[in-house]
Amino acid sequence: MGSLTDIGVSAGINILSALGFLLAFAVLRIQPINDRVYFPKWYLKGTRSSPRHLGTVFSKFVNADLSTYIRFLNWMPAALKMPEPELIEHAGLDSAVYVRIYLLGLKIFVPIAVLAFTVLVPVNWTSGTLENEKGLSYDQIDKLSISNLGKGSKRFWAHIVMAYVFTFWTFYVLYHEYKVITTMRLRFLANQNRRPDQYTVLVRNVPPDPDESVSEHVEHFFAVNHRDHYLTHQIVYNANHLSGLVEKKKGLKNWLIYYENQHAKNPTKKPTMKTGLWGLWGKRVDAIEYYKKAIEELCKQEDEERQKVITDPNSIMPAAFVSFKTRWGAAVCAQTQQTSNPTVWLTEWAPEPRDVYWANLAIPFVGLSIRRLLMSVLLFFLTFFFMVPIAIVQSLANLDDIERLLPFLKPIIERNSLKSVIQGFLPGIVLKIFLILLPTILMTMSKIEGHISLSGLDRRTASKYYLFLFVNVFLGSVITGTAFQQLDNFIHQSASKIPEIVGESIPMKATFFMSFIMVDGWAGVAAEVLRLKPLVMFHIKNAFLVRTELDREQAMDPGGLDFYYSEPRLQLYFLLGLVYAVVTPILLPFIIVFFSLAYVVFRHQIINVYNQQYESGAQFWPDVQRRLVIAVIVSQILLLGLLSTQEAEKSTVVLLPLPVLSIWFHYVCKGRFEPAFVKFPLQDAMVKDTLEQAHNPTFNLREYLKGAYVHPVFQRNDIYELVAIDEEEKNPIVVTKRQSRMNTPVGSKFNSSSGTNEGDFSRMPPT
Amino acid sequence: MGSLTDIGVSAGINILSALGFLLAFAVLRIQPINDRVYFPKWYLKGTRSSPRHLGTVFSKFVNADLSTYIRFLNWMPAALKMPEPELIEHAGLDSAVYVRIYLLGLKIFVPIAVLAFTVLVPVNWTSGTLENEKGLSYDQIDKLSISNLGKGSKRFWAHIVMAYVFTFWTFYVLYHEYKVITTMRLRFLANQNRRPDQYTVLVRNVPPDPDESVSEHVEHFFAVNHRDHYLTHQIVYNANHLSGLVEKKKGLKNWLIYYENQHAKNPTKKPTMKTGLWGLWGKRVDAIEYYKKAIEELCKQEDEERQKVITDPNSIMPAAFVSFKTRWGAAVCAQTQQTSNPTVWLTEWAPEPRDVYWANLAIPFVGLSIRRLLMSVLLFFLTFFFMVPIAIVQSLANLDDIERLLPFLKPIIERNSLKSVIQGFLPGIVLKIFLILLPTILMTMSKIEGHISLSGLDRRTASKYYLFLFVNVFLGSVITGTAFQQLDNFIHQSASKIPEIVGESIPMKATFFMSFIMVDGWAGVAAEVLRLKPLVMFHIKNAFLVRTELDREQAMDPGGLDFYYSEPRLQLYFLLGLVYAVVTPILLPFIIVFFSLAYVVFRHQIINVYNQQYESGAQFWPDVQRRLVIAVIVSQILLLGLLSTQEAEKSTVVLLPLPVLSIWFHYVCKGRFEPAFVKFPLQDAMVKDTLEQAHNPTFNLREYLKGAYVHPVFQRNDIYELVAIDEEEKNPIVVTKRQSRMNTPVGSKFNSSSGTNEGDFSRMPPT
Repeated sequence: MGSLTDIGVSAGINILSALGFLLAFAVLRIQPINDRVYFPKWYLKGTRSSPRHLGTVFSKFVNADLSTYIRFLNWMPAALKMPEPELIEHAGLDSAVYVRIYLLGLKIFVPIAVLAFTVLVPVNWTSGTLENEKGLSYDQIDKLSISNLGKGSKRFWAHIVMAYVFTFWTFYVLYHEYKVITTMRLRFLANQNRRPDQYTVLVRNVPPDPDESVSEHVEHFFAVNHRDHYLTHQIVYNANHLSGLVEKKKGLKNWLIYYENQHAKNPTKKPTMKTGLWGLWGKRVDAIEYYKKAIEELCKQEDEERQKVITDPNSIMPAAFVSFKTRWGAAVCAQTQQTSNPTVWLTEWAPEPRDVYWANLAIPFVGLSIRRLLMSVLLFFLTFFFMVPIAIVQSLANLDDIERLLPFLKPIIERNSLKSVIQGFLPGIVLKIFLILLPTILMTMSKIEGHISLSGLDRRTASKYYLFLFVNVFLGSVITGTAFQQLDNFIHQSASKIPEIVGESIPMKATFFMSFIMVDGWAGVAAEVLRLKPLVMFHIKNAFLVRTELDREQAMDPGGLDFYYSEPRLQLYFLLGLVYAVVTPILLPFIIVFFSLAYVVFRHQIINVYNQQYESGAQFWPDVQRRLVIAVIVSQILLLGLLSTQEAEKSTVVLLPLPVLSIWFHYVCKGRFEPAFVKFPLQDAMVKDTLEQAHNPTFNLREYLKGAYVHPVFQRNDIYELVAIDEEEKNPIVVTKRQSRMNTPVGSKFNSSSGTNEGDFSRMPPT
Repeated sequence: MGSLTDIGVSAGINILSALGFLLAFAVLRIQPINDRVYFPKWYLKGTRSSPRHLGTVFSKFVNADLSTYIRFLNWMPAALKMPEPELIEHAGLDSAVYVRIYLLGLKIFVPIAVLAFTVLVPVNWTSGTLENEKGLSYDQIDKLSISNLGKGSKRFWAHIVMAYVFTFWTFYVLYHEYKVITTMRLRFLANQNRRPDQYTVLVRNVPPDPDESVSEHVEHFFAVNHRDHYLTHQIVYNANHLSGLVEKKKGLKNWLIYYENQHAKNPTKKPTMKTGLWGLWGKRVDAIEYYKKAIEELCKQEDEERQKVITDPNSIMPAAFVSFKTRWGAAVCAQTQQTSNPTVWLTEWAPEPRDVYWANLAIPFVGLSIRRLLMSVLLFFLTFFFMVPIAIVQSLANLDDIERLLPFLKPIIERNSLKSVIQGFLPGIVLKIFLILLPTILMTMSKIEGHISLSGLDRRTASKYYLFLFVNVFLGSVITGTAFQQLDNFIHQSASKIPEIVGESIPMKATFFMSFIMVDGWAGVAAEVLRLKPLVMFHIKNAFLVRTELDREQAMDPGGLDFYYSEPRLQLYFLLGLVYAVVTPILLPFIIVFFSLAYVVFRHQIINVYNQQYESGAQFWPDVQRRLVIAVIVSQILLLGLLSTQEAEKSTVVLLPLPVLSIWFHYVCKGRFEPAFVKFPLQDAMVKDTLEQAHNPTFNLREYLKGAYVHPVFQRNDIYELVAIDEEEKNPIVVTKRQSRMNTPVGSKFNSSSGTNEGDFSRMPPT
């Protein structure tokens, strides 16, 4: 274990680097040129416009008002000022609930830390076992931890009592928080305006019918079995190929704009390019002409494909979005089984339109369970054997091979000092690249599993990532060795031995985890607020691709919370805090600093930066709660293991009820709160229906729902037309008054140009 | 391991005892005096009447037709003759599906046995390892088992391949069977006549309302939230105390009848009795007078209690049976969540009226999760530590203590030979009594858990009993030692060691399990058909209590399948068969004989004897399937463990996918079929509603449902009145034409005498 001085130095360095990031952020954010990087949320809301329009050219880019530099930390209180209801309105419930996780960390750990420092630290400190044992190297941190108690000491009772107190306190906070979040969710759903997904149910695995098309079959089925409630439906097309074309066109369009900008800057020189791979080989042609022609061709292909999708019955998926006259009808349909065969006519709440993951709607249901099996096997191997491919790549990526492949690098590499540095770093870099790619790999696995909403994908990926982090970061750090070696050990160890092994190493790793919290936590959060990557990307795009305000709007990359990536990492801190609360309480202040800093930073980010892709109404909370309870149970089992190696076996029996109680607590909470996150209660549906009926009896719901669930390639169409329109506006053939529709509601985006696929609506009789 | 001769002798003895039972049954069943013991089902159906009314006095009691004795086994083909649809109609789906479990055993094990005997037995036999190893005692059975293969033999591959073949065959049969049972269930539900439970939903945990009674609150809630579907409801009274009184009165009445019969036989002598404990102490009184007075008093108490239950608002439970106008409406309400708080207004399908476990309806919901926690902890201790109290009782129940307590027994006990016999038997008897009581104890635990239907209680108890049998009978026999010692071993063994230990002992225990199958299986089934206990009880009752035909009808004890008790024991044979299929295939024929015999016997019993208390529509099948898959997984893991001790570690890796596949298979089946056992599909409900609407548009459903879900103490009332009426008929004051209503449908049983609690219906407006 490191000494207090080591920790102090490490803390100093990390505090300085965190401060450095914060300072850089404070300076950069008040420069008008970066305004769109640090306040994109407000631009998207339409309440902030480019500061470039005001003042001199210089002040457009650089902030010269020195007084603003002095108050460089004033964004912090500002981030805390916005009250929660306003925050929910501004950023959505998902984000508002997400930052509450950090607050939850403070709620759990501040009282625990206070108690631990008043009770456990004195108990540990005054027990002079380490001092008395000569020849043992120890240090102040050890003296503060449970290691300072001798084997079989009576003082372990203090720790056992505290384990109970901490557990019950955590339960209390968790239960209370779950209750609050449930209430928030229900209030949010109740206050929500009319939304298409409130009336709509996604039906999958419509069985084939020899006489009827999917659309007719769906209509007849629901008109019969939900006689009084069925309103309309929207069939689902397999437009994955079409989306591919659209994406490709988008890329080509960017290049076209790039070359046109080049040309505009230097009108005398026509930009040229090579047609071969990455523009390195091939014939040199006029770039603008080339891209214009390519786009034109792609447009043709796209039109053909669009026609094909709409007319070809094979591209109609056996799935549909079915809408009902009332929320009550939709709630009933989503929660019930439709036919005696439970693998057909599967109904579930439709995700909100932005949340739908369209590519997976085309997956036939048959193979879903096989996909899930394969993915769980893969996840197992990825978690425990990921080091195998990494090691292979690392062995390939040694310098001698590189020299042989790329001989011209030889003189550079052969310099001795450089060679050893690279040789030392290369394996680490390979591992680092894998770890950076990991969340994306896991997300791809979740996509293969066939979940149909972005929020569902996020949640599933978070579970996978948490497993990986738990095994490879937490267990892997405690017991050094690869996950595979651990697995091998664990299989050949007895069930009671495993917690002992892990538990015994826990106190010795406290210093390591303190450094981890400072590097990954403190500095990481401070780096998050700086947004280095979006900052660079924005300025690159701004330099080469931006011509109109709309382009600039698109060049902003507000990003989002990335639940699948950030929540599992955050859970790691809860796990560390709970595990060390009893063992080495000195770690708790580090956790508390992390949660405080992260709370301020993320609150600032969701207010000013992030633009969530979807709004699931905090549907992820049951997952958060589950992982928190897992952390509690792990901490209890490890404490059990630790104490049983300290010759306090008798007293550990007293700890045995704790995990049982925790599991029970989990089921109580699950039973009490989880349905609110899965089902929509009929009473609430009825209340909203009745209110709406009273307020707006003549509302045309059919018209409102029309096109709400149309595949985005049929909608996004508008956006691409807008680009064309912009060009037209510049060189108007006919004067147009059309405007950007970026912020108009989804429902009205569907315009008549893609009206061919509305045939299914118009065929419907007015029920 | 025993020799072939040992097994042969044991088989001979058991076959003889089984034949003895069958012979005794064959003789006893054709005696007219036993007719009601062996054919009660037909009496209850009303298609068979007492044979005593015909022929001479002698032939009333004894069958003198010798030709019937010759064909003493002809009940066997008769039992197999009834086709399945008729069987379902006759005995209900539960019973028909239950005997299919035995058939399933044959379907699984006959092909496996054929394959094992053609492939594995020759492979084992021709591998001469045991012969070559001198000094090892072995025997023919060992030569047929996997033990005959030397360590690291290549022949293990045959076993590995067979393990796959057997697994896939089992999966195929299980999947097919699940499919068939699902179809049977759905057809059964679809063909069912109108039943009150099709329209009714049980609502629990109605929240208290300061202004409204429970009844009003329920009515308002459902009239609002299921506006178009709500019809009526029936509140639930806490009549547990009243039931107690009714039970007590029944007991007293039996005694009264007994003494009246005594008096009738010997009119000169008035029967007397002592009032003290068990009639041993106290004042001697006229017995008839005494009981008449006691009953009269109890009647008064009962009336008071009944008045109290009906008028006291505290005896109204926050639960109700809510009925809907259509099956569709009920299906919707049962499957959906009603309010945002998922712990109130809990709805589930109402069990059919006979299936309701009334005592638990009065349990408030709040404590249910605590009850379940306590019961699972208790089950854990019962399973692993049941030997502790048994040992205490055994140590108390030694003869010296008994001598001290009851000195007058001393001279008898002190005879040396007797003393040692008793001393030897007593601990065994204590254990045996515990094992006999065990299912009842487990059933009580399930009752405490608060399940509200008899079928649910049966299913939950079966799960508990299976756990107990698995740990204490299966594992306990394989690794000798108490369950607690095993638990201790297992905790201190590594995860990979446990299957090795168990797996290694498996081949050695084959002989033991063969004897077990013969004693518990063959002889046990043969004893089942003899019905020794009901036979004795019937004749006792017949001698002392029976006066009228109705009494005789009540004296019959047809019994039932007792799912909670018989199914887990039956599962043990599947487990044994699957575990030994690869290891010692010689065990399979024993299993096959058991399943064949049991199939015939139980088919005979459900046709002629058993009268099921309820009909759940084979709702237990998912549990059966789950335990079968558990058996498959256990067999695979044990084979893995066994092979890894045989220095065939490399080849065992090939077995690893098997358990993964099995778990996956379980989830596939669960997803595919289980909803049919839990939910009622809307389409089926709609079809039945539409048909009924067409056939019988003027049917008065409200009238039909009235009183369907009234607590049986308010209904049973009639029966007791009937007894009084019978007496009246004998000494008629006014001539009556009333008849036994035992077989009238439940709906019409509710007569006006208990009409006070109909107030809730009459208050309801015609919706």
